[in-house]
Amino acid sequence: MLILMKNSATREDLIRVKKKIEGLGYRAHEIPGAQRTAIGITGNQGKVDPDLFATMSGVEQAIPVSKPYKLVGRDAKPENSRIDVGGETIGGPELAIIAGPCSIESWEQLIATAKAVKDAGAKFLRGGAFKPRTSPYTFQGMKEEGLVLLREARAQTGLKIVTEVKDILTLPAVAEVADVIQIGARNMTSFGLLEAVGDLRTPVLLKRGISSTIEELLMAAEYILARGNLNVILCERGIRTFEPATRNTLDLNAIPVVKKLSHLPIIVDPSHGIGLWEGVTAMALAGVAAGADGIMIEVHPHPSEALSDGSQSLKPERFKELVEKVRRVAEVVGRTVSPVSPGVAG
Amino acid sequence: MLILMKNSATREDLIRVKKKIEGLGYRAHEIPGAQRTAIGITGNQGKVDPDLFATMSGVEQAIPVSKPYKLVGRDAKPENSRIDVGGETIGGPELAIIAGPCSIESWEQLIATAKAVKDAGAKFLRGGAFKPRTSPYTFQGMKEEGLVLLREARAQTGLKIVTEVKDILTLPAVAEVADVIQIGARNMTSFGLLEAVGDLRTPVLLKRGISSTIEELLMAAEYILARGNLNVILCERGIRTFEPATRNTLDLNAIPVVKKLSHLPIIVDPSHGIGLWEGVTAMALAGVAAGADGIMIEVHPHPSEALSDGSQSLKPERFKELVEKVRRVAEVVGRTVSPVSPGVAG
Amino acid sequence: MLILMKNSATREDLIRVKKKIEGLGYRAHEIPGAQRTAIGITGNQGKVDPDLFATMSGVEQAIPVSKPYKLVGRDAKPENSRIDVGGETIGGPELAIIAGPCSIESWEQLIATAKAVKDAGAKFLRGGAFKPRTSPYTFQGMKEEGLVLLREARAQTGLKIVTEVKDILTLPAVAEVADVIQIGARNMTSFGLLEAVGDLRTPVLLKRGISSTIEELLMAAEYILARGNLNVILCERGIRTFEPATRNTLDLNAIPVVKKLSHLPIIVDPSHGIGLWEGVTAMALAGVAAGADGIMIEVHPHPSEALSDGSQSLKPERFKELVEKVRRVAEVVGRTVSPVSPGVAG
Amino acid sequence: MLILMKNSATREDLIRVKKKIEGLGYRAHEIPGAQRTAIGITGNQGKVDPDLFATMSGVEQAIPVSKPYKLVGRDAKPENSRIDVGGETIGGPELAIIAGPCSIESWEQLIATAKAVKDAGAKFLRGGAFKPRTSPYTFQGMKEEGLVLLREARAQTGLKIVTEVKDILTLPAVAEVADVIQIGARNMTSFGLLEAVGDLRTPVLLKRGISSTIEELLMAAEYILARGNLNVILCERGIRTFEPATRNTLDLNAIPVVKKLSHLPIIVDPSHGIGLWEGVTAMALAGVAAGADGIMIEVHPHPSEALSDGSQSLKPERFKELVEKVRRVAEVVGRTVSPVSPGVAG
Repeated sequence: MLILMKNSATREDLIRVKKKIEGLGYRAHEIPGAQRTAIGITGNQGKVDPDLFATMSGVEQAIPVSKPYKLVGRDAKPENSRIDVGGETIGGPELAIIAGPCSIESWEQLIATAKAVKDAGAKFLRGGAFKPRTSPYTFQGMKEEGLVLLREARAQTGLKIVTEVKDILTLPAVAEVADVIQIGARNMTSFGLLEAVGDLRTPVLLKRGISSTIEELLMAAEYILARGNLNVILCERGIRTFEPATRNTLDLNAIPVVKKLSHLPIIVDPSHGIGLWEGVTAMALAGVAAGADGIMIEVHPHPSEALSDGSQSLKPERFKELVEKVRRVAEVVGRTVSPVSPGVAG
Repeated sequence: MLILMKNSATREDLIRVKKKIEGLGYRAHEIPGAQRTAIGITGNQGKVDPDLFATMSGVEQAIPVSKPYKLVGRDAKPENSRIDVGGETIGGPELAIIAGPCSIESWEQLIATAKAVKDAGAKFLRGGAFKPRTSPYTFQGMKEEGLVLLREARAQTGLKIVTEVKDILTLPAVAEVADVIQIGARNMTSFGLLEAVGDLRTPVLLKRGISSTIEELLMAAEYILARGNLNVILCERGIRTFEPATRNTLDLNAIPVVKKLSHLPIIVDPSHGIGLWEGVTAMALAGVAAGADGIMIEVHPHPSEALSDGSQSLKPERFKELVEKVRRVAEVVGRTVSPVSPGVAG
Repeated sequence: MLILMKNSATREDLIRVKKKIEGLGYRAHEIPGAQRTAIGITGNQGKVDPDLFATMSGVEQAIPVSKPYKLVGRDAKPENSRIDVGGETIGGPELAIIAGPCSIESWEQLIATAKAVKDAGAKFLRGGAFKPRTSPYTFQGMKEEGLVLLREARAQTGLKIVTEVKDILTLPAVAEVADVIQIGARNMTSFGLLEAVGDLRTPVLLKRGISSTIEELLMAAEYILARGNLNVILCERGIRTFEPATRNTLDLNAIPVVKKLSHLPIIVDPSHGIGLWEGVTAMALAGVAAGADGIMIEVHPHPSEALSDGSQSLKPERFKELVEKVRRVAEVVGRTVSPVSPGVAG
Repeated sequence: MLILMKNSATREDLIRVKKKIEGLGYRAHEIPGAQRTAIGITGNQGKVDPDLFATMSGVEQAIPVSKPYKLVGRDAKPENSRIDVGGETIGGPELAIIAGPCSIESWEQLIATAKAVKDAGAKFLRGGAFKPRTSPYTFQGMKEEGLVLLREARAQTGLKIVTEVKDILTLPAVAEVADVIQIGARNMTSFGLLEAVGDLRTPVLLKRGISSTIEELLMAAEYILARGNLNVILCERGIRTFEPATRNTLDLNAIPVVKKLSHLPIIVDPSHGIGLWEGVTAMALAGVAAGADGIMIEVHPHPSEALSDGSQSLKPERFKELVEKVRRVAEVVGRTVSPVSPGVAG
């Protein structure tokens, strides 16, 4: 059930509706919108009678919702959500350009990459400190030490930090540094972790699980919104199919489909989506053309020496060319890429 | 084995090499290139000794090939193939814009669509006369009568005709009308049919099978080239995955991968690739941004009344908008879309 | 629409109903059953009024059918179909044991295998004369010569012949020799070929397409039954998934699902289903335990020298052990395997 | 690297080898076998020189291992692992029969099911207290209260308890009650959780992820063994494919493949594997025929009222029939099912 409030509804109207919902033993979720506020009701077993709310002051309409998700749906909020990340916005007209190494390997590697991607036009630095890896015997990241380096890189460049959380135990450490907390594909159904980041207000970058449907991605986001954290950015990063020539199959169909169903922003990760550096630029352009709200690109000063994902990482100069092309495709679809300030990387 | 001829090789050199190949009991396939000619050897069991050719006049190099395909590979022909379709070129700088109804339903429907898509910038009219359908009880196309209508539509508009062949029995009738013979996804592994179109010289649009790998697509093309028909255009039209929200998963990764492996042009069919009309424009733009050599779009004057694929067909006015956006994305990736001649649809 | 006739209906009743159907411009399909006869109506656009038939003599009930298939469904025929193959039955209590080489390579190879599999308990000899192959450069079968050898092997052993048809052009030659015509996975959606075997009365072994759903398999069978050939045996042979360790993923779930939806027999091909000889016996037993009506096994006297599928072929002695185990599992699920006559392979 | 010790090696030999490994900065993992002991070396970057160990007293051989897993592989331990669960063995000749409700819903439901499945021959009671669910709004389990009920059900029936752990936070509570800790499909790549159960010695039932390859399943098990917990039981529960007729595609190919690659026991979950109660018995029999070491079946006294997975749950009487058939298939493949003690359920 969704309660849509009138444009003219007062704060008191809103509070009265929320109290009524809670009095019935349910939970009320306020979903602010540009034009009006909606209130989602969850925690009900079975149907809620719309008449209980229809005549209350300030209520426009009480809408039964049949989709399994509520808060992430367009019904709850018709206009696009814009997520504020310390002054930068994801989901507005300007595309989010996120770039950096797969794993943080050293201060030299991190700061060189950070300066280079900023120079190319990125506003966000990605870099993994805790790395979930298929094998227990491969490099698991620099861990806490990596977080320290990320903090310092932000101090020196002003880039916002996007970094992955591996599990609940290390969430507090990650949350202290991250401007955006990334939930990786392997954790999309770690519901305890979703609930834990739902209790924060830090923006969350939620990657689609490797074989998750679009609806399951939206349900995972719903877990986070249901706990009160509305700052969720979705990410298409490729799904598992029978095709062996590429690491994953980047499902760009997901962009227009998510845009239709949900108000949340969605970005594209072409580095994992194709897994071959020669194809990353093509797929980044394709993602932007399909309507994505941003791109996340793996960049490494020396891909052949990278401790992880070297074969899909771009050199800084190639990334710079990529951003210039992205800027031009963005214009065609009514989006922008922030101009590069001269002398940044000085 | 591939024999690369020198730039300076004469026609006599070439003939001598081919005779030697045939004298060994193998088949020689001449593959003309912009800079030089290559000769593919097939029919050999086991390895062919490169020294047999290395010292012959006009021979640059004899290269053993380990990939399962030979004639479709970049090794055989480093530069992109440009397929001539009665004066129009597919695979050159200008994108091929192919549009029309899924099935031909009537003269009125066909000619209205043909004029509208020409007016919007298309140079090729697609339309199915013979329709392979999952159910024996659904509309199977207008068959021979549809071919007559296609011929007349070409006469009136000058559009080139792209139409599907269903089986070997109806190939002669289709081949008489088609400027491009389409092999549908369900027939990508009908090897007898591949051989039969390989014996023609009419250009062939070969769609990727619904669960075929990229390598299998290239092998299917190899069947056609091996019979002497070098005029093959590949088409990515979506693969089958676990995702239920879309009809197929358009695998745009296939574009840069094919471009790397093969000299053949590849176009994108976003109508089947997503199966939802609201997403067709986004995916057409994405396909062009990814480097496709053209797009094929289902257009119908009244999609809700279409006998097949109505839910993924665009109205003519929406198709026109699509082409205008495609034109602008094309520029970013160094391609063009032909200007619309004023007064075409008069 | 299905017309169920009463047990007591006469031949005249039946003919009157069929004439009425044809008089309406539809097609009538007689589906004989153990208890009663059903008549399927196809060719109708839109619904047929049940009242047109309900009061006719001999009619028990007129049932509108919502599933896309009619003739293959349990609604049309509640009891299992038993397909007669020259005196042997597929779909009855006795399991069909089909075995032989992937490709016929020589008389010595074929007759040695034939005698060995007969000695082990097989009643059917499989062997490919026309081989659809992914590459145009690999062995395509002995073709007509292979058919001659199959005929001779039948004459010497009494085994029934199961052999694949590759396309419509070679169907007449194959049909002349085959006791069961096999349609391979790559041809499951070659609708012209399905119609052509539908016009025959020879039993057809229809393999599930490599990425076909169970419903699509039933629809392909419907194409054959709709032309009047009711003698269709389905075959689960593995589907394409993301798992690289096995050639295909044998989907044994399909056995109970098909048994619920359709009256047609279904057998299992574990050789293609797993693609590794060490796993063939395990998967054959699993298929029988799941309720399959038979098994088809690749057997080769010298697997390491086979021209195709050597890695999934069993040696004769291993096949014999397999059949003995199958016999014991068969008993548990209420099925039998024919006893081996002493001295057969003399 | 694996160090295989001689049969005649003494405890002192073993300790000397382990000290040498640790002295090099690596980790040593003792893997006891029936005939001899192996020592796995992990933590090395790059190759370890076999000559360092080859001449030490008691060392048979030092084997470089190229597979990504070491401890779970047959190289490390040629004979099957038998996991002791409080006196019951999983992985020996006797099949493990695990049954019970998807979710614990009440004491009445749990104890009725427990008595019924024991009466039918089960030795293990499954039941979820913490339920990972796709939607935040559906029943999440009775949590701690459910664990109390499980403990009481064990006290009354003697059945061993198999129950799922949802995340690290609730692991201590689950571990206190569980005889076998289940890691669900959605958590197969929650590496922090894998490490945490690796630090325990309680047996772990590790389910294959919904789109995990067999190798990834083995790698997930390797995470647990690498921390010292050798008591891992694998579980095939169906993978995600394009087939919509069943909840998952039970990949029984995985049984013979895992048996070849690993010494760990593997059981089958046909309830999730097909997701339709009518097919559960067929697939349980198929799993046993394929060589599984046990089965896990969802049983509910009133499936239509179940709070989760009702459509795939069996009634107790049907489960009893299933076990009787399993017993007979087990005999064919050289396995046993424990006889039912008379008067158990009294």
